[in-house]
Amino acid sequence: MRWGYALPIIVALATPGAWAAAPVSAVDAYVQAHQKEIVGQLDSMVRIESVAANPDGLTRQAAKLEGELRRRGFAARQIVEGGPPLVFGELKARGARRTVIFYAHYDGQPVTPSQWASPPFDPVMRSGPLSARPSDIDWRATKALDPEWRLFGRATSDDKAGIVAFLAAFDALKASGQRPKVNIKVVWEGEEEAGSPHLRALLNANKALFAGDVWMIGDGPAHQSRRRTLYFGARGMMGLEATVYGPLSPLHDGHYGNWVRNPAAMAAELIASLRAPDGNIMIPGYSDDVRPLAAPERAAIAALPPIEDGLKRQFGIGGSEGSEGLTMSTMRPSINIRGLSAGKVGDSATNSIPADAQISIDFRLVPDETPEHIRAKVERYLTEQGWTIVSAAPDMAARLAHPRIVRLDWEGGYPALRADMAIPVARAAAKAMGKDVALLPMMGGSVPIYLFEDVLHTPVIGLPLANHDNSQHAANENLRLGNLWDGIASYAAMMTRLDW
Amino acid sequence: MRWGYALPIIVALATPGAWAAAPVSAVDAYVQAHQKEIVGQLDSMVRIESVAANPDGLTRQAAKLEGELRRRGFAARQIVEGGPPLVFGELKARGARRTVIFYAHYDGQPVTPSQWASPPFDPVMRSGPLSARPSDIDWRATKALDPEWRLFGRATSDDKAGIVAFLAAFDALKASGQRPKVNIKVVWEGEEEAGSPHLRALLNANKALFAGDVWMIGDGPAHQSRRRTLYFGARGMMGLEATVYGPLSPLHDGHYGNWVRNPAAMAAELIASLRAPDGNIMIPGYSDDVRPLAAPERAAIAALPPIEDGLKRQFGIGGSEGSEGLTMSTMRPSINIRGLSAGKVGDSATNSIPADAQISIDFRLVPDETPEHIRAKVERYLTEQGWTIVSAAPDMAARLAHPRIVRLDWEGGYPALRADMAIPVARAAAKAMGKDVALLPMMGGSVPIYLFEDVLHTPVIGLPLANHDNSQHAANENLRLGNLWDGIASYAAMMTRLDW
Repeated sequence: MRWGYALPIIVALATPGAWAAAPVSAVDAYVQAHQKEIVGQLDSMVRIESVAANPDGLTRQAAKLEGELRRRGFAARQIVEGGPPLVFGELKARGARRTVIFYAHYDGQPVTPSQWASPPFDPVMRSGPLSARPSDIDWRATKALDPEWRLFGRATSDDKAGIVAFLAAFDALKASGQRPKVNIKVVWEGEEEAGSPHLRALLNANKALFAGDVWMIGDGPAHQSRRRTLYFGARGMMGLEATVYGPLSPLHDGHYGNWVRNPAAMAAELIASLRAPDGNIMIPGYSDDVRPLAAPERAAIAALPPIEDGLKRQFGIGGSEGSEGLTMSTMRPSINIRGLSAGKVGDSATNSIPADAQISIDFRLVPDETPEHIRAKVERYLTEQGWTIVSAAPDMAARLAHPRIVRLDWEGGYPALRADMAIPVARAAAKAMGKDVALLPMMGGSVPIYLFEDVLHTPVIGLPLANHDNSQHAANENLRLGNLWDGIASYAAMMTRLDW
Repeated sequence: MRWGYALPIIVALATPGAWAAAPVSAVDAYVQAHQKEIVGQLDSMVRIESVAANPDGLTRQAAKLEGELRRRGFAARQIVEGGPPLVFGELKARGARRTVIFYAHYDGQPVTPSQWASPPFDPVMRSGPLSARPSDIDWRATKALDPEWRLFGRATSDDKAGIVAFLAAFDALKASGQRPKVNIKVVWEGEEEAGSPHLRALLNANKALFAGDVWMIGDGPAHQSRRRTLYFGARGMMGLEATVYGPLSPLHDGHYGNWVRNPAAMAAELIASLRAPDGNIMIPGYSDDVRPLAAPERAAIAALPPIEDGLKRQFGIGGSEGSEGLTMSTMRPSINIRGLSAGKVGDSATNSIPADAQISIDFRLVPDETPEHIRAKVERYLTEQGWTIVSAAPDMAARLAHPRIVRLDWEGGYPALRADMAIPVARAAAKAMGKDVALLPMMGGSVPIYLFEDVLHTPVIGLPLANHDNSQHAANENLRLGNLWDGIASYAAMMTRLDW
């Protein structure tokens, strides 16, 4: 960050310990007394390099988590279906009618250590976000932990925090003599960041084991207002790598420009034909499948505290793409340009027509779009715009026959889920969370939670806790401690106050 | 090259030795007898690494060239005006009324050796272009040299061939007992590939030394038909690096896409607003300064042999950008996208809104456009399109005040020149070249030859010899031997047959 302006601009609107009822304040008291122990558990988990590039780290993490569950009295085991182990645990509650399945994942995103301010698997506590030029904190030596402090390390937020919060909530209840009021199942996946390639097979093969009344997904960021958050769905997604072909090799653009088509310019035209400057998609019929928001969903969005002005300052932007607020904007389908590459720029630029141009796109899907429909609509539209679509590099015959060739390499996608916020379990979860909770009909980001409903026909509710500015999927991922304390309170509430 | 289709697709329409008159056929006989010696001279020049990154190589090349001129009886010297030496030579011809100044440059483009099939300063003879999968030739050991063979090495074509052709033509005339019919001056520049930053100062400081009746510019490619070529101008150019700003750092495009503007998409919109798919520039009034082609210029273009179908096959393209032929297309101003960069593509792609996007553009200018007018028109247009133009990275206040910010870094440009093809010296040059010569009103590529007219008020004619497919400014630059033989004949003609 080149700008040293002060953060946080987003203030925390929710504070831990805002509970009137006794059971949860007992949890708060436990957390207050055991903060260092809890942070220590997260710290030691981050040190296990459980990323896809390190299968041994995944295996060690899974074994350790199985042990954590067993130590707490859970029946626990590891389930393997071709990928890293899935850690499963179960604990019955005396007299409980309902079973809640707590999902999280113990694998983290890949790392590029050179981009990190400190080694990604050697956690560092800092007094705030990097943009605020924080100081390093020797947290083990201090008296109390400031909730604005952040622990930096891979998977602190995404998603080991969700596991630590669950365990701490469970421990807090036990220490204060409380018992969970629901049967608890735990599913901790080890390949979410790799796209959960075996999740469908795992669910299909273990339907009885995974039976329950609701899945609580402990993943994703909390609302930008810092209110504790529930979400009731997530957008789907599909990736696309598009290659636009120019001449066989770069050509002098003085001698051949204006006559030989320029693939960089063609790529720009392609993008500009897909989406308007306000982000609206210009493919006719693209939104035909889109299910409108229901009244409770609109109401929930309207009830969210405004965070747009603060985010603009935080992100350094002078306006938004559309005219709606952030959450409403993410209820729409979107076409995001995640990368562009053609020729060279800056000091490396040469006066050439590039041989090709690459566009990297991700499509975010909303209900009831399907990846198959999106793909068909995009391909039909591009064909109508005069493009010849190929799925491999064109040979000479194809090049000579077609003036505008684009190669489309689609990545397998998955649909969105937006569950009914008015069903009893959804209302019960919102009630259990208490006051000042942010209820999001659907998260803008994508997680394949449609699977739980699709395979198991079980309701799904998101229980995220990470700070929104956690540098998710990037270098310098971090977890704000206040978010962890809030998350523990939320998990405890789901174990003790969820009643429907 | 992945395609092994056979080349050449462009056949040579002109053959060396097509001269009826005795003096030039004597030159041809000399060349025929001294081919290896001439190629050896080019080979040894290429081994001197006279590129900007190697000032010592430039100095050694200049000293060597001064020696070559002195050995042939020229009054020669080196002139320095802050950059590499300019090599100047002069030889009076008995009874001559006219003075012809032969310009070439001894510096070559920078190299990226890893991109070359053989080391750039260690010339290799091959049986054809790389695309034809040629065999390497031990040319010193063969009996005769095939005109389709090519010598590969940096600056073989651009522009040491122009120097070797001059020297060989001079030697051929001398050996056959002929004398130049014009006074000869030689100007061999050492920083053309660096944009000739000192050329204006050099010309201004040495007007008397550089006085003459015509400058003959021995640079650039010959017509694609392989006809020997004269050109009477060259487009001007100006470079621009544009940076479009998004959020301060990349953002998760699921959580923030459709609300935070995407600079990659904005860059595409910017490009698509500048130029239509047919290459026509959409800035109102952009072409107000453009001087229409004169009748002789149109006639010269109409008289060129058609080369478009062959070039399409050579370049692997199925159509052209506009509906005009190649040469007519390059008579227009153009906006070329030479590079695009934002985020990451392919396997490195992340689902992020990039922090910025870079566009690298070069503008090709035609008479009577000026860089200043182009710049003003582009900036006014972008402002009208809602862009805020900055010249440095925006600070937080600027970011928050302006929703669409683009930074424009202009590179110093220069105007075009298109001289009158009907003036006596132009007609005399065309006549001296003989039959089957390609007369181009203006070269599509840019060289700052406007300076000779601007500073010295002297007519300028281009005398290029390189094969059009010489991989100019790229890896694997090469010179086709037949083009060198033709070039020697052309230089000899300019020394002995130019009469006006």
